[in-house]
This record gives sequence, structure tokens and C-alpha cells, in this order.
Amino acid sequence: MAHSQTTYVPGYKNTHVQHHEWRNAENSAAFLIPVLQAKATETPDLKLLDVGAGSGTITASLAKYMPHGHVTATDISDEILKSAAAYAEKVGVTNITFQTANVYKLPFSDDAFDIVHASMVLSHLDAHADALREMLRVTKPGGVVANRESDLRMWCWYPELPGIAKMQKIQNLVHEKGGASSKVGPQLVSYAMQAGAKREQITMSFGTWTYSTPEERNMWAGVLAARCREGESRKKALKEGWATAEDYDEAAQAWDEWARTEDATFGAMHGEILIRKD
Amino acid sequence: MAHSQTTYVPGYKNTHVQHHEWRNAENSAAFLIPVLQAKATETPDLKLLDVGAGSGTITASLAKYMPHGHVTATDISDEILKSAAAYAEKVGVTNITFQTANVYKLPFSDDAFDIVHASMVLSHLDAHADALREMLRVTKPGGVVANRESDLRMWCWYPELPGIAKMQKIQNLVHEKGGASSKVGPQLVSYAMQAGAKREQITMSFGTWTYSTPEERNMWAGVLAARCREGESRKKALKEGWATAEDYDEAAQAWDEWARTEDATFGAMHGEILIRKD
Repeated sequence: MAHSQTTYVPGYKNTHVQHHEWRNAENSAAFLIPVLQAKATETPDLKLLDVGAGSGTITASLAKYMPHGHVTATDISDEILKSAAAYAEKVGVTNITFQTANVYKLPFSDDAFDIVHASMVLSHLDAHADALREMLRVTKPGGVVANRESDLRMWCWYPELPGIAKMQKIQNLVHEKGGASSKVGPQLVSYAMQAGAKREQITMSFGTWTYSTPEERNMWAGVLAARCREGESRKKALKEGWATAEDYDEAAQAWDEWARTEDATFGAMHGEILIRKD
Repeated sequence: MAHSQTTYVPGYKNTHVQHHEWRNAENSAAFLIPVLQAKATETPDLKLLDVGAGSGTITASLAKYMPHGHVTATDISDEILKSAAAYAEKVGVTNITFQTANVYKLPFSDDAFDIVHASMVLSHLDAHADALREMLRVTKPGGVVANRESDLRMWCWYPELPGIAKMQKIQNLVHEKGGASSKVGPQLVSYAMQAGAKREQITMSFGTWTYSTPEERNMWAGVLAARCREGESRKKALKEGWATAEDYDEAAQAWDEWARTEDATFGAMHGEILIRKD
């Protein structure tokens, strides 16, 4: 199968990274925490691989649950891994090694890790099952692959500003046209079975992100309004004729208004799987 | 404000109750559990009111977290409360009192309960803020109102059977036409503020239901296929001309097929609030 998608379309500007840095184990990998705690008790020197670690905030947060273990964080981008290493140093987490790697060809031997984690990675790839198969290969028997991915249709927000609906529609189009997938979340069981897992080895759940407090609203709307005004997606969509500058400007203004609204809320739902390797 | 909605359209047939009985504190009120545990430690003889308790499985499950406290469970339907009482007896939970009541006029004095909980109740009402105001009235200062409500647009499923999309569309129409609301979840902060709460007293989150294992698929699809084939909603929609028998039959067959699909998943997202009464 072709593996054409090896870049990350949204880019790594500060406005995008701001949301990435909000993420931690509690708000983005809660489904893995009980498993991680149990494994860290059973095998204190456990090994965790975080694939597509990006800005590394989830990585550093997971690493805190396994102070006597070791984390390997990979990403296709050397640039973002440098920023992840700087973040880990800033927060005083010392048990992480950073290494550039392609998820389809992980530079590790079979059965090398107790836990292999990826968050919002498959959504940017075009061969989802191949990525999970490679993650399973480097997982020890008795170990676990943990993966969380979006369904970009699953957004709800209040007040119901039409500019936000417009952005959601354009964003999903840009995502799909760019060779990525906007709805991997509910298909994770299917991809895991295509990767060789049996149904009974898989635990499926759905997780959410919530933005509602003044701080959360400013962070989330700030990131999305900036993406509408100056993001790589905007440039690509305008160039290809998928949307107009007016569409993006309306969406950006809607995010500004949403952030100012005291009773505003936003929710997004993601699919999550734990695959037990026998 | 008019309070016209005092019946529960889906009815209480076994096929509907089967899903209600799947519900417990862990899968339907996880956002309340840490608060309940903290209060039960601080005030062992705490008082919890469960409004619109229905078949009472969440109620009984919450009651187990407060063995030295007391739970009052209310519902508009005397019939369903009898079934809730029978369920509590069956599972050996003895610290619950059952009492018929209207959520708009709760038969309790001000400041009577430490925790007031309602799950999927406001969605069946037409005066959401009035219900929350009444729940706040009977909550002690320092206590908490906890409420979880659907957004019926927030369903995702795999495989993408069109019959399921058809059912979702019809169901939301029947819900809205019947005077209820299909999207209370993301509006909960707004309703809480209309009921007198300040923004800083409110904690918003989103929760989910997942159906994916063979048992979950059979339960969920069984309930929804039966609702499509013989539910009160079908009778009402056919009578009013909102949908045809063929629409409902196609939807029922889609649920049958979904249940048989080994890698099928279904997720639903709900809004949740905790309101701290000062």
C-alpha cells in the first residue's frame, strides 16, 4: 500500500502549537492511564513508545506516571521533536529519548515496548492499518497499543454561530483532499482488525475535549481563528478554490465572537482503542 | 413559563428499558463520581436527590458510593418508580426512598440535599432553566447540582449504514415536534446561568456512551430496532406523516446489520455540568 502522507498539513506555527501544548495525559489519554498505572506497578522499568509525539506534552505527562520506566518519543519531524525535548526539560521530565522515525518503519526490534501510544496520528496518514500493524510489531506480547483519533464531524458548540459550521465543513474538505482522513475515530476497531488483532483483544471507547472556561475559550478560539486567518489550510484551500477568503474571514470572526460569549461551550469526540497483544 | 411536557414519549416498554437498565454511575455519571466520593468522605450521612430517576439503575449505582448516606429518587411516573424500587431490592441497595414528583415543583424544602442529580431529564422538558432553578433551590449551600443531557446530533457509527442516518434524522424531528429538545447538552452552561448560577460556579464537560462489543451491539441495536419497528415514536411519526413505514423498516434493518458487523462501533456525546451552590 502507498504511504504518501509524510507531512503534517497544519504546520507548526505557534498558534497551532498552543493547542497541542494544552494537551496532557489527563485530557487526551485518560483511557490509557489505568493500564499505564497497572503496568508501572507490575513492571516499574517498563518501556513506552509514543509515536508521532509532536510537541511532546502528552509524552511528558505519560512519562510522569512511570518515573522508573523509559519513554521513547518519535515523530516524522525533527523540528517538532527539538521543541518536545525543550518542553520536557522545562517541566523537569528526564526519562524520555527523542528520535525521528517514520511510523510505517519504526527503527525498533520486534516486541520492544510494553506500551505503544499514538494520539491524532493515523488521521494524518493514508494507510491506517499499516501504521497499527507496525505499532503492534514493536509491542511485547502482553503489551498494549493505545490509539486515539478524531472524527472531525463530531463537533458541537453553543451558541450556534454559522461561521463555525462553515469552518468545520471547509476544514474536513481540506483534510480529505490533502490525503488524510477526517473520520478515523469510529473506524479504529476495523483498522485494528485489518492490522491482525482479534475483536476480543480490542477495547473501544470514545473520549472528548471540552472548551468552556474563559481560558479554554481564548486558547481554542485563538488557535482556530488564527488558523482561519493565516494557516496553511487557508492558503491551500484558497489556492485550490475550495473556499474563499470571505469564508475564512467569517469563520475567524465567529471564533472571536464565540470566545467572548460567557456561556459558550465546545465539545469534540474522539475514538480510542486499546489493543492487547497476545 | 409553560411547563407542558410531563410525559415521556418513548414509553416504558421492555425494549426501551433494556438500555435504561444498562446505565450505571460509571458509564452515565462518571463526571459526578469524584465529587460524590469526596462528599461521602467529608459527610458520610449525605443526602442525594436523583430527579427523573426512571428505571433507577444510575440511582442504585450512585447509592453504592454513599453507603451511610440516603438517596431520594423521584420521577413523574409512578409506574417506572415501582420498577426502580424492584431493581434496587434485586441488587440489595436499601438506602433509597422513591417518591413521585414533578421536577418543576419538587416536594422538598430549600437547601435539603448535598447533591441533586438528573440524567437525560431536561431533554424531555420545555423549560430547562426552570428545572435547574428548582434543583438549585433544594440544594444546600456548598452542595452540587449534576446534570447530563444529550445532543442527539452527536452520534457517530461505523459502518456508515444510511438507515442509521435516516433514523437519527427522524428521531430528532419526532423529539423536537413533541416539545422536547434534541440538543440540550451543549446549552447546559447557558441554562444554568439563566437559572441564576454564575459562570465560575459551573464546571462543563462532555461524556460519551460507546457500543462496540458483541453484547453492547446486541443491546443497543436491539433497543433501537425495536423502537423503529414498534415504538411510540414510530406510531406518532406515521400518524403525523413525518416518516413512512418504509423509512422505519429500513432503519430497523440497518440496526440488525450493524449488530451483526464484528468491527462495528457507535458513539454518542453528552453535555455534563456540575453547578456549585454558594
